[in-house]
This record gives sequence, structure tokens and C-alpha cells, in this order.
Amino acid sequence: MKTCLVHEKTYARLAPRLKDVEHKLDVLIMTDEGRFYHAGSRVVTDKVEPDIVFGSLDCFFSPSAREFIMAVLQSDRLDWFQSPAAGVDNAVLKSIGKASKQYTTNHTQAESMAEWALWSALDFLRAGPAHRAQQAAREWKRVQSREIAGSRWLIVGYGSIGEAVGKRVSALGGHVTGLRRSPGPAPGAHEILPISVLPDELPGADVVLLCVPHTAETEGMANADFFSRMKPDALFMNLGRGALVDEEALVAALDAGRPAYAALDVTRVEPLPEDSPLWHHPKISITPHDSTQTNGTLLRADETFLDNLHRYLNDEPLRHLVDRKAFED
Amino acid sequence: MKTCLVHEKTYARLAPRLKDVEHKLDVLIMTDEGRFYHAGSRVVTDKVEPDIVFGSLDCFFSPSAREFIMAVLQSDRLDWFQSPAAGVDNAVLKSIGKASKQYTTNHTQAESMAEWALWSALDFLRAGPAHRAQQAAREWKRVQSREIAGSRWLIVGYGSIGEAVGKRVSALGGHVTGLRRSPGPAPGAHEILPISVLPDELPGADVVLLCVPHTAETEGMANADFFSRMKPDALFMNLGRGALVDEEALVAALDAGRPAYAALDVTRVEPLPEDSPLWHHPKISITPHDSTQTNGTLLRADETFLDNLHRYLNDEPLRHLVDRKAFED
Repeated sequence: MKTCLVHEKTYARLAPRLKDVEHKLDVLIMTDEGRFYHAGSRVVTDKVEPDIVFGSLDCFFSPSAREFIMAVLQSDRLDWFQSPAAGVDNAVLKSIGKASKQYTTNHTQAESMAEWALWSALDFLRAGPAHRAQQAAREWKRVQSREIAGSRWLIVGYGSIGEAVGKRVSALGGHVTGLRRSPGPAPGAHEILPISVLPDELPGADVVLLCVPHTAETEGMANADFFSRMKPDALFMNLGRGALVDEEALVAALDAGRPAYAALDVTRVEPLPEDSPLWHHPKISITPHDSTQTNGTLLRADETFLDNLHRYLNDEPLRHLVDRKAFED
Repeated sequence: MKTCLVHEKTYARLAPRLKDVEHKLDVLIMTDEGRFYHAGSRVVTDKVEPDIVFGSLDCFFSPSAREFIMAVLQSDRLDWFQSPAAGVDNAVLKSIGKASKQYTTNHTQAESMAEWALWSALDFLRAGPAHRAQQAAREWKRVQSREIAGSRWLIVGYGSIGEAVGKRVSALGGHVTGLRRSPGPAPGAHEILPISVLPDELPGADVVLLCVPHTAETEGMANADFFSRMKPDALFMNLGRGALVDEEALVAALDAGRPAYAALDVTRVEPLPEDSPLWHHPKISITPHDSTQTNGTLLRADETFLDNLHRYLNDEPLRHLVDRKAFED
């Protein structure tokens, strides 16, 4: 029988759907206090040797995330790790990838990130900051605002996240230009163009969204020249990696009035240092890299795990299996 | 030749598209300073006797709105007034309706109101207030949030506004129940039910949106009983009229923890009095009845006017002509 480690909150959701495999599976449960017990028992155990680990967001965002990671890395029997994330460009995930015979990724965060983009864009277009300042001042004064309908979006990096955003923006009547290496068409985009046309496309966009991976080529791509090509009333958003943006150039550009506003879910150093000028800039809104962290992401990742668990127990190939080379130094 | 009164900002947008009728039309332009001049001249005139008036939002939200309304009401030749609004339940519009031989309405605000609903719902579901409080405190702490995808919406009043909201929410993966008198189906709604089932539907909704007209039946419909049936984590929104809501009951319900939050574009008394407890309630966001006030609404209303103008000049029947009985006392 295989031992499968899951978080207590994850198990609370999945238990009814694990009934059919409980004869094949010993479920080991971790609590937010960093204690471990077997499903069906309440006796705390010190023997934590999982074959299978579902590293859901419940684990990584738990107060006992550290104990969880230690337990995973110390298991001598680790055969399969199901990650909650799409990427492996993270030191912890890389260590786990090295420690596990099989490692599978999750591609269920794009939806949540796309709703973050809609939220951030609507809050800008609808003049959220001005409305809130007026409410704080008990001032009843109509504010002229803008719509996603008819707005022009430039999505830099049109992979699964870009496409999830593009589909929603198109459905709401916006115009979507996606930039990526491979030519179009792609769902949700009115046009797909090569990344090389970026400088020519920036001046026409009301909303510019970065969601390219961080590579040597994309490092600091949003620099002074990039921002100087944007419209004075445009919004800049980053859902990729903080290293894509020259943050000093961004602050200077906002101060110079072009673009109008920036919404960032990622920053160059995370957590963002307390003395960063980004925190209190009146034209920047920051979320702490939590655009993926919704109930929906949790539920969709559960589905990925359950699907792969049945495959695993039936000796079928796992979905989203990562080539072991990705974990080599 | 007919004299047509428009606001200077409206004319700036429409001038190229009025070229083909300029031989039939004397365009009289009003400025934000309340001065009037004829197109093609810059000489200010005191003679303001329009046959046609396009009462765009530029006029009603102008600093010279009062001069505009006076000019309309004092014209002895007023033959057709194009309103920017769908309703006529407003003292000023009623007076104009009485003064004009023909009066046409505009049904182009639903899109803007629907985007207001998405904005308000996303700001609640994504924990906007918590994120902003953290940013103000320079605190980097992930917040668990929610999605429109999978959320259950109860839209009370499924007319043009309800439908515009429902279409968008459905496209984003939400579940939409619309309540209205006439049976379904209707675009954007998974089900259409009669208003009478409201008490049974409230407990299942994540988002409840009011967009019914204000009548004797709907007056104060959102009362203590209504709120007590909502979920503790649900959002209440009002895009209809302030009089639909018992505001004291709303404050008491929010304080009691059910529903979680309210987003209001309308209040019982407008402008909302400075001493209203709604202004500074931590669980209420207020916009000053400006959910319609977007660039998109302006542009769509321009289209309504241009279409009707060509009909008028060609002696064809006008669209959205209001029965004169609507203006009787």
C-alpha cells in the first residue's frame, strides 16, 4: 500500500472522492500545526515517509509550510510529487524535483490570474482610487470613467495565461493583440504578432500586460524606452516575474506621466522590502504575488491531482510529467 | 433649416459625421461656460431657440447644466429632444418631456452598468480592501480570494441591465439566475424565475444584484428579512434605485455579518448627505450614481442620436419615442 501525504484542508475537500481508492492508499495528513496523522486515526505519528505527495497550495501557504517541505525532502520513498504550480523556476520546487522520482506540474492557475487582470484593469478604468478618495472625503461627485469594451490590450507573452486573459477581454468587447514567438491564430486574440513588433505596438495600447517567462532575453524588458512608448492614459500590468521590469524606470515613467498607472502582482525582490518606493507610490497597486491564490485554483488543482492519482494507481502515464533534466544544475 | 442644440464636447466628436447633413442643419453649440454659438462661427449668441436638442451626458454633467436645461425649457420651437437616459422618472426629464413635441430615450447605458457590476464584484471577491490595507501598511502577505468563475449570481430584475450583467458573468464562468415577471429563457441567464421565489433564492447566492425599477411594490424590498436570508460571505449590489433598499436595515445586517459587503451606485437620498453612516462604513463601497458615466456610454448615445437625426431629417419615425402619456401628471 502506498502512503500519500496531503494537507488536512485538502483532505477535507477530497475525502469523499478518495473512497474508491482507500483500499490502495494510506493517506497521511498534515495539519497547520505541523503534525501528521493517518486518515481514519487521530494518533499523531513521527514516521513520515510518503511515496506520493500532493503539494497543494494548502501546504505551501500553511504556517507549517517549512515542516511540509522538510518532510517531503527527507522521505526516502518519494516516488511522485504533484506540484500546485506550472513552473519549476523556484529553488524549493527544484529541490523537490531532484528528490522525487516523478514530478508533475499543474496548469490550473491561468483562470485565477486572468480574473486578477480583469480586476486590476477595471479598477483602473473605473477610476477606483478617485472613487475611494471621494468616499473617504464624503464627496458625491460623478467621475468620468472607461470601459473594457472598446479598449485595446497588448498581451506580451500569449501562452496559457495570456490566452486566459485574452478570451475574457474579447468576451467583454475589448480588442486583443497577443505577442509570442509562434505565429497565430490563438483563441481570444484578434491578432497574434511576433515579440519583435513590441515597440511599434506599445503606443496603441490602453492596457499592456506582461506574462512572458523570465529569461536572459526578457530580463528588464520593461525599461525606460518601453514606458516612453506607452500612452499617457494607459495601464501597465505585470503577471510574469518581477525581473521583467526595471522598477526605477517604472517609477520615473509614472512620475513623468506615462503610463498612467501600474498594477503589479510580482516584484523584483519578494517579499517587497519595506523601504521600496513602490509601496506608497500613488500610481501603483501591488498584490503580494497572490494572483493565483483563489478557491478556484485550489479546486482545479484538486482535479489535476485526482486524475493523476487514478493514473498512478492504475500504472498509466502521469499527465504533465516534467523531464528530469529540468532539475539538473 | 432646423436648429439643433448640442454640447461643444459632443460636437467635437460628431462634427465629421454631420458633414452630410450640414446643409439641412444649423448646429447651435453650448460651452461649459454656458455660452452659445453657431457651428462655423465663434460669435456668441443670445438667441437660443432650438428645434432639436441632443441632451447628451456632456450637457447634463456640464458646469452649465442649469443653463442648458433653461435653454431647452424656454424654446418655443422644441420639436424633438434626444435624451441620454433610458428612464423618464426624473423631474427634469419629465419637464423636458412636457416641453418637447417628441422625446426619445437612450438604451445604451446597460453595458457601462454591467462593467460597474463586474468591477464591484471582482473588488469584493479578490479582497480589494484587504489588499489595499496591506499595501498601505507595506505588508507582503498572501490573501486567499475568490473568482467569478463558479460564483452564483442572483440578478433581481432581468431587463436590459440585468441581461448585460448576466451575459458577462456567464462568459466568465459564473452561474446566473435572473428574476423577472415574464418567463424565460433569456440571454446570459442559466435560469429565469419569477420574482416571487426571491426569498428561496437569496440563501444560495454569492452575489445579489438589484436592478428592478422603483415602484410601490419594490420600494424597500431589500429589508431586514431580505438580508437575513443572504450568505455571510455574499455581496449585495444595487444598480437600481436607492429607494429599493432599507438603508438602516442594510447597515444593521452588515454589522451583524450577513451579507459580507455592499456596493451601491444609488442611495435613498442623492447626493448622499454628509452625515449618512453609509459613507464611512467599512463594508460599504459607494459610487455617486455614475455607473453609466463612461466613454462607451457617450459613444453609444452618439450613435442613437445620429441614427435618429437621419430619421428625423428624412421624415422617418424616430426610434425609442416615448408615449406622451408618460409625461402627464
